[in-house]
Amino acid sequence: MAEIGAQNDPIVGAHHKNNVKYQRDIDQFVNVIKGALQPISVPPADSYMSTLAPAAWSGPHGSKLLIPGYNPNQVPETNLRSSAVTRTVGGMATHWTCSSPKPHEEERVLNPIPAAELDQLLDRAADLLKVKTDQYDTSIRHRLVKKTLQDALGPDRGVDSLPLGVTRNTGNPEFVTWTATDTIFDKWSSDPRFTLLTESRVTELHADPSNTEAIGGALIRDLKSTNDDIYVKAKVYIVACGAVCTPQLLWNSNIRPDALGRYLTEQSLSFCQIVLTKKLVESIYNNPEFKEQVDEHLRKHPNDPLPIPYKDPEPQVLIPYKSATPWHVQVHRDAFSYGDVGPKADPRVVVDLRFFGKGEIVKENRVTFGENDAQDIYGMPQATFYVTRTADDADRDQRMMQDMTTVANVLGGFLPGSYPQFMEPGLALHITGTTRIGNDPATSVADANSRVHGFQNLFVGGNGCIPDATACNPTRTSMAIALKGAAAVLEVLKSKKA
Amino acid sequence: MAEIGAQNDPIVGAHHKNNVKYQRDIDQFVNVIKGALQPISVPPADSYMSTLAPAAWSGPHGSKLLIPGYNPNQVPETNLRSSAVTRTVGGMATHWTCSSPKPHEEERVLNPIPAAELDQLLDRAADLLKVKTDQYDTSIRHRLVKKTLQDALGPDRGVDSLPLGVTRNTGNPEFVTWTATDTIFDKWSSDPRFTLLTESRVTELHADPSNTEAIGGALIRDLKSTNDDIYVKAKVYIVACGAVCTPQLLWNSNIRPDALGRYLTEQSLSFCQIVLTKKLVESIYNNPEFKEQVDEHLRKHPNDPLPIPYKDPEPQVLIPYKSATPWHVQVHRDAFSYGDVGPKADPRVVVDLRFFGKGEIVKENRVTFGENDAQDIYGMPQATFYVTRTADDADRDQRMMQDMTTVANVLGGFLPGSYPQFMEPGLALHITGTTRIGNDPATSVADANSRVHGFQNLFVGGNGCIPDATACNPTRTSMAIALKGAAAVLEVLKSKKA
Amino acid sequence: MAEIGAQNDPIVGAHHKNNVKYQRDIDQFVNVIKGALQPISVPPADSYMSTLAPAAWSGPHGSKLLIPGYNPNQVPETNLRSSAVTRTVGGMATHWTCSSPKPHEEERVLNPIPAAELDQLLDRAADLLKVKTDQYDTSIRHRLVKKTLQDALGPDRGVDSLPLGVTRNTGNPEFVTWTATDTIFDKWSSDPRFTLLTESRVTELHADPSNTEAIGGALIRDLKSTNDDIYVKAKVYIVACGAVCTPQLLWNSNIRPDALGRYLTEQSLSFCQIVLTKKLVESIYNNPEFKEQVDEHLRKHPNDPLPIPYKDPEPQVLIPYKSATPWHVQVHRDAFSYGDVGPKADPRVVVDLRFFGKGEIVKENRVTFGENDAQDIYGMPQATFYVTRTADDADRDQRMMQDMTTVANVLGGFLPGSYPQFMEPGLALHITGTTRIGNDPATSVADANSRVHGFQNLFVGGNGCIPDATACNPTRTSMAIALKGAAAVLEVLKSKKA
Amino acid sequence: MAEIGAQNDPIVGAHHKNNVKYQRDIDQFVNVIKGALQPISVPPADSYMSTLAPAAWSGPHGSKLLIPGYNPNQVPETNLRSSAVTRTVGGMATHWTCSSPKPHEEERVLNPIPAAELDQLLDRAADLLKVKTDQYDTSIRHRLVKKTLQDALGPDRGVDSLPLGVTRNTGNPEFVTWTATDTIFDKWSSDPRFTLLTESRVTELHADPSNTEAIGGALIRDLKSTNDDIYVKAKVYIVACGAVCTPQLLWNSNIRPDALGRYLTEQSLSFCQIVLTKKLVESIYNNPEFKEQVDEHLRKHPNDPLPIPYKDPEPQVLIPYKSATPWHVQVHRDAFSYGDVGPKADPRVVVDLRFFGKGEIVKENRVTFGENDAQDIYGMPQATFYVTRTADDADRDQRMMQDMTTVANVLGGFLPGSYPQFMEPGLALHITGTTRIGNDPATSVADANSRVHGFQNLFVGGNGCIPDATACNPTRTSMAIALKGAAAVLEVLKSKKA
Repeated sequence: MAEIGAQNDPIVGAHHKNNVKYQRDIDQFVNVIKGALQPISVPPADSYMSTLAPAAWSGPHGSKLLIPGYNPNQVPETNLRSSAVTRTVGGMATHWTCSSPKPHEEERVLNPIPAAELDQLLDRAADLLKVKTDQYDTSIRHRLVKKTLQDALGPDRGVDSLPLGVTRNTGNPEFVTWTATDTIFDKWSSDPRFTLLTESRVTELHADPSNTEAIGGALIRDLKSTNDDIYVKAKVYIVACGAVCTPQLLWNSNIRPDALGRYLTEQSLSFCQIVLTKKLVESIYNNPEFKEQVDEHLRKHPNDPLPIPYKDPEPQVLIPYKSATPWHVQVHRDAFSYGDVGPKADPRVVVDLRFFGKGEIVKENRVTFGENDAQDIYGMPQATFYVTRTADDADRDQRMMQDMTTVANVLGGFLPGSYPQFMEPGLALHITGTTRIGNDPATSVADANSRVHGFQNLFVGGNGCIPDATACNPTRTSMAIALKGAAAVLEVLKSKKA
Repeated sequence: MAEIGAQNDPIVGAHHKNNVKYQRDIDQFVNVIKGALQPISVPPADSYMSTLAPAAWSGPHGSKLLIPGYNPNQVPETNLRSSAVTRTVGGMATHWTCSSPKPHEEERVLNPIPAAELDQLLDRAADLLKVKTDQYDTSIRHRLVKKTLQDALGPDRGVDSLPLGVTRNTGNPEFVTWTATDTIFDKWSSDPRFTLLTESRVTELHADPSNTEAIGGALIRDLKSTNDDIYVKAKVYIVACGAVCTPQLLWNSNIRPDALGRYLTEQSLSFCQIVLTKKLVESIYNNPEFKEQVDEHLRKHPNDPLPIPYKDPEPQVLIPYKSATPWHVQVHRDAFSYGDVGPKADPRVVVDLRFFGKGEIVKENRVTFGENDAQDIYGMPQATFYVTRTADDADRDQRMMQDMTTVANVLGGFLPGSYPQFMEPGLALHITGTTRIGNDPATSVADANSRVHGFQNLFVGGNGCIPDATACNPTRTSMAIALKGAAAVLEVLKSKKA
Repeated sequence: MAEIGAQNDPIVGAHHKNNVKYQRDIDQFVNVIKGALQPISVPPADSYMSTLAPAAWSGPHGSKLLIPGYNPNQVPETNLRSSAVTRTVGGMATHWTCSSPKPHEEERVLNPIPAAELDQLLDRAADLLKVKTDQYDTSIRHRLVKKTLQDALGPDRGVDSLPLGVTRNTGNPEFVTWTATDTIFDKWSSDPRFTLLTESRVTELHADPSNTEAIGGALIRDLKSTNDDIYVKAKVYIVACGAVCTPQLLWNSNIRPDALGRYLTEQSLSFCQIVLTKKLVESIYNNPEFKEQVDEHLRKHPNDPLPIPYKDPEPQVLIPYKSATPWHVQVHRDAFSYGDVGPKADPRVVVDLRFFGKGEIVKENRVTFGENDAQDIYGMPQATFYVTRTADDADRDQRMMQDMTTVANVLGGFLPGSYPQFMEPGLALHITGTTRIGNDPATSVADANSRVHGFQNLFVGGNGCIPDATACNPTRTSMAIALKGAAAVLEVLKSKKA
Repeated sequence: MAEIGAQNDPIVGAHHKNNVKYQRDIDQFVNVIKGALQPISVPPADSYMSTLAPAAWSGPHGSKLLIPGYNPNQVPETNLRSSAVTRTVGGMATHWTCSSPKPHEEERVLNPIPAAELDQLLDRAADLLKVKTDQYDTSIRHRLVKKTLQDALGPDRGVDSLPLGVTRNTGNPEFVTWTATDTIFDKWSSDPRFTLLTESRVTELHADPSNTEAIGGALIRDLKSTNDDIYVKAKVYIVACGAVCTPQLLWNSNIRPDALGRYLTEQSLSFCQIVLTKKLVESIYNNPEFKEQVDEHLRKHPNDPLPIPYKDPEPQVLIPYKSATPWHVQVHRDAFSYGDVGPKADPRVVVDLRFFGKGEIVKENRVTFGENDAQDIYGMPQATFYVTRTADDADRDQRMMQDMTTVANVLGGFLPGSYPQFMEPGLALHITGTTRIGNDPATSVADANSRVHGFQNLFVGGNGCIPDATACNPTRTSMAIALKGAAAVLEVLKSKKA
């Protein structure tokens, strides 16, 4: 396994949020995420600074800052400006929220895997990700928020606990262990068959000269120590570098089916934070369900003006996608690359609202590579986005925003500075479709087994494989697809052995 | 070895800046540092938000936000507001700049180690830290900045290359390896005698019931998995948790000599960033010394308006402490928890100026612990600062600021937003004196061997041991002190064996 | 007539927004308003600046900035922080929006003036203020916004044109003339019976030594030229300095009935700005009602991407107070001390939403004067606020915010930076009740004739006279009250003559 | 006299800063200035907002905001972005600082008026402007700052009181009266020969059909009431609308000599604010010169931590232009469109430093009009700037910045947020040269009498007439030139009569 990033934890692929430090001070984790996420396509900025000293060097008039890291081909209006990749072993393991709801039927209509099989695969994925909904049931805030929303929105909305890949520590229930790649491959570091190359760029795959339907080798560069290339041969090649770098590698290997990078969807994301109403907070005092916890807390901290233990776990509530309200909602408190609470508000009364809206599938919504020979800072063909939202998307987003403000006003008042707003395109980090699976090679990159059309031993993985417009978090779905793909990989390996 | 933080790298104690990702995009490393640094003493903020919805919960009138993580005992005016600790194995290995100049004689007048011996120890420390001054000699910018300052300031100022604990990679000279704890203890992970306990809080040391002059055991809590305590017995106990947490642990162990936490010094820090003058930049074109590099660059990038290769290493220049200008100066380009360049300026023409000013030694400048039973978020007695600068300090700082603006105007114009300014107290992260060594137990915590006065088997380490007012980076000095201490530890171990 | 401010226009009391300059560039008028509004009660700020040079002067530790202009007695939580006065002849004539709807019956239940009489007075006030609803009927945007809201909200909400004291210029219909004091008293500068003293502080009223029920004189200081006092004797004294300075002057004259400054109400204000939806904007092209205007515009400006003439008047739409939605709504585009559009948005597609919420009448909500001998910068007793919103107010505000987000989402998307938010208390500038009229001297300051209880020749005027909780703009109501008071004044004058 | 702006004061042309309100609260006057100053040339902004709701209207991809008020022809790099005009009767009378030093000989080398005559004219100008240097001699701060700088900088720098057009009120010395146009023409409102047309645009001057060397009439539009044109005939026409609108009107009248708008110079401006050192502040206590004032203040305000009366006038200190330091320096405290002190610092210890640097005279530095038929918001040909600083200017600016930081460090520490910086080009509001006087019609617009070359009865006035590179405030110089011009105008009038 080759990874362009470094291994930033002694446990391969562990979730960084498992650190005690960050579970105690979640605001600080915001910086860790910011440090890990590298924007994909940043248009160059104007380099003119009107207050710079006249003697200081400045670029030619009208020039933009053209240095590595900026993409001169990117039009701002079609960019996914906040789209980012992590360059770390177990990449998502800094920013992944571990939210893993089962997608609604409308979010899986184009998937070539038969419905019943996909259903089973989604269940297996949930098992492997250790998805649970009861790990926050001891939390006062979780129960309060869930019940309040269930009462206010009625049963049709299906308000429930958010299914999360997380396990509360039994020895020390203050902390949890978030699911990450180490949850699934927990023995790889000790498995002699497994080799991890870090800070190594897979530059391109080479066709097998003796078989045009097979990959014969991979050119890999050791970026750090030597800057030298090595050549790796394998029976099967799996490319799973995220929804942008996976098609990037195929493109750089001259594997460029028409669908590559197309049919790209990204979710819209609206966000706000609220401070719970006084009414809700004061209802805690007299709620018999919370009495024991409140009493104990107030005994220890009689001057605390809040009836909420300092270590009360955060709320983790789901409002699922429904046909009438086709968006996915997380009502919780978590660290993202934004949304820290700051010094003025007691974080125990702050709740985050994140609404994810799906995007129609449009062939022209796409990512391209290497226009005008531009390269990214790793020397790979630079990705450029051409993504806009359709009129239907815009209407749906408008309804979603209206729904978010309604839900917010049920719970509390907007936290000043975190008012209801659409976030920058790409911030959901839920790009799909760029290597979508499907039965028709004209409109897909890989088949239902995630095998790239036209190749025997080349597979793709990740959210790029999802062929549908989804609103919920994509990881569970892409894992379901990968499970089927893994079985196909095993078949190849077996047949090769034979 | 027990460490309260997690091991955030597969190599114990490695410098995070060694990642390819951050050497290519140093601005992003700013976030990593921010994520790692945890402020020591944060006064509670006003919790009133004038634009919060009237229905939302708010604290009692006039209340401050009193939750874990804020220190109700801290007066803002005597705080070192930007003072921070890292809670990571090899803590400094995120933010350490690796600058390791030899301290001026005036920076080591109170050290109880004989001058000649200290000199040798400082040399040994430099060897162990792999301190070099030639690793940026291939850089156009480094040579340009150094020469410009040498010419402008004259020989008395001693402008030179900054001594750095860094080694340029031979295989791939684009990258360097920064010195960190792994540089010195490179074999510990494989040494069977070494055990590392991470996310484990050393709560207190217990006196040996049979010998009041010895420590008999350490109470350590496994913070993460079990929240249980273990009890560790050893022949020798070394406390080296930084200049604040080292006295914190002693204090919590009821070892509280009068000097503990006192005689605290912290350096003032003034900072600005400049954009090199057009004159200096254009002088590169015709400088025969740079010709080959410039030609090659312009061949590859004929449209680049700058004659500086994209991978030209940054400048790393020193203006050393002198009696007439008693401050330490770094003219360089580096990632701190502040000072990212942003999208408007080409980072190749930006240079950082950091001026560090010493602080007089005053007994009343101190850190206290556990006032009014306050605890930090790890459950240890909360540190509170009482630190101000004297009138002499203020005068010296004023002269230092004047010097900085003069040096800046030689090189270029201020980068808008990074104007010449004093940074918040504590930002230098160079606290010394809190466990100072000395011959007099009335005014010091440990002897010249770093052994705590009155104990046979208790040693301290770190910048807190430095008894002097310093302006330069303290690591090399505290390492010199530690080398002597290590010899004394070996003596104890040998004698115990016997 | 004595006025503490200067006469900032050659026409006494004219509205500054009548200037061509500001009607062409309304964003710039924001600055004029800011310059005119002087905050009433500003709590002192912390004076510690953590990055100030150590050599610079700083106040004692923990000190607040105690200089003229700051009120050391003000608690932030009960302040009306954005409450401000203008010190200009015709004060409101910078910031007055001229919105003059007729108050709903629920907004005039406590008024001692008989309902039918009050109704007539309100009509006369509208006549005098030249209130009209048809002056924006030529505007495309006005008609579009009004129609859209009428369709979306239904007839029960009563969406209509905002009644405004404004007259479109007949000679040049691009501009309008806003009503101000000059509209009513247009001949005063030429009336020999009228004398205006500017920059003259009315310090106090003195009782008539021969008649305890009469005022015998006013002490007035010429602030500018001489700082000398003059003494003015009159038959009738009318104090009309706004809802704060009117009770201030009474208090300073030792006229301090129990109700003075009490029963204070201020409206809550929620605000956002939206960018019209593409759908609405594009509907203009095909609307036959707009065809002629659009065609003409596009003929002149064929490259303009908008079908809206550059000089199309702004929308001015009202959603009136109703029992079910007890708040007053302005959907318009106007200059306040906030809400300029900035360079990124075409102002033609931006619409402001302002929702005003009433506040329950509570005796303890009050303004006090001269606590601890504090003075304002004019040497008068400093006003201090003790105002909070009740639980019912908070609930109503929450519903109002929900309504505002719903209305906003009908029209467009939030303008980034102008998200739905509550503004700082006091920003509505609609304080009432501080010199309320009523029949019971125990709970009011003046009688139904605005005559101060217990005095024959002392009258009060302004919003402070309003005894009700109102949501709509108060000017028309306070003018209605003043009309009745004026009649009573005439009676006194006649009787004196006799 | 026709003026495009409104008359915003009952006294024609009075200085708005004479209001008591603003002399008591100078920070608020910043808003008044901002409201009065209208930027001349603002390049259109990008109109893309990445977080706008997808349903909201947005312009075509890549479009800039092209609406009235923005100049599509302006290149940012050659703009004088902060250059602004006031559209008010007595325009400068909001922002004019009244600083009127006598220009150094090097600042008047190109002036065609004989040196001795010019000297006399400058003296007469000073008389008319009521320029004095002693009006702040009672101020503690003024004397302290002046003496400190005199001691630190030595006699060669000529530190002295700033010559100001100001008169301290004798009746009430707390306030001053700033010189403005009303100071000179104090009787015009009552003079029956004088007519003022406000909000009236002089569109163009028409040649006299019978005499190509004479102007025969002026076309003036009543902007507000009717939008109609009137035609005014006069014996003499004087155009004095500021350095940009004067050439604008000539250009629009088809009077376009080669020098029109060329040879434009604008001063660079560097700025910072300092907080006086504790040493300087404390020196006040023991200074016998200040004893009486300090004692009286402390008697009244024993708890004030500062020995400075609240009404102590601000410092007003000059460091004049010298050959060795060719820049003009004001060390004072005043309201500009920037530089308010804010709530954290006691304004009594804050001092502003403003350094004005001259700009070489370059023919290509110019303002053009009406490119691509662009119009300003008054319908006149839009001005576009092509102004850059030469290499010599840049060097001089760099030395000036170095001098400013040195002077600042003598007095105190930088006020956080007001660090030493160059302000945006044009902020000095000291454009000269655009209608420069000279003997050679090839390089000037008017002769030494300010009469436009080739015309008998057309005169120009204002800073645009100055042919030199100046660093000091230009008003006194342009007034000296105007005095000579006025004499010539009288000659014409006399001859016409004859």
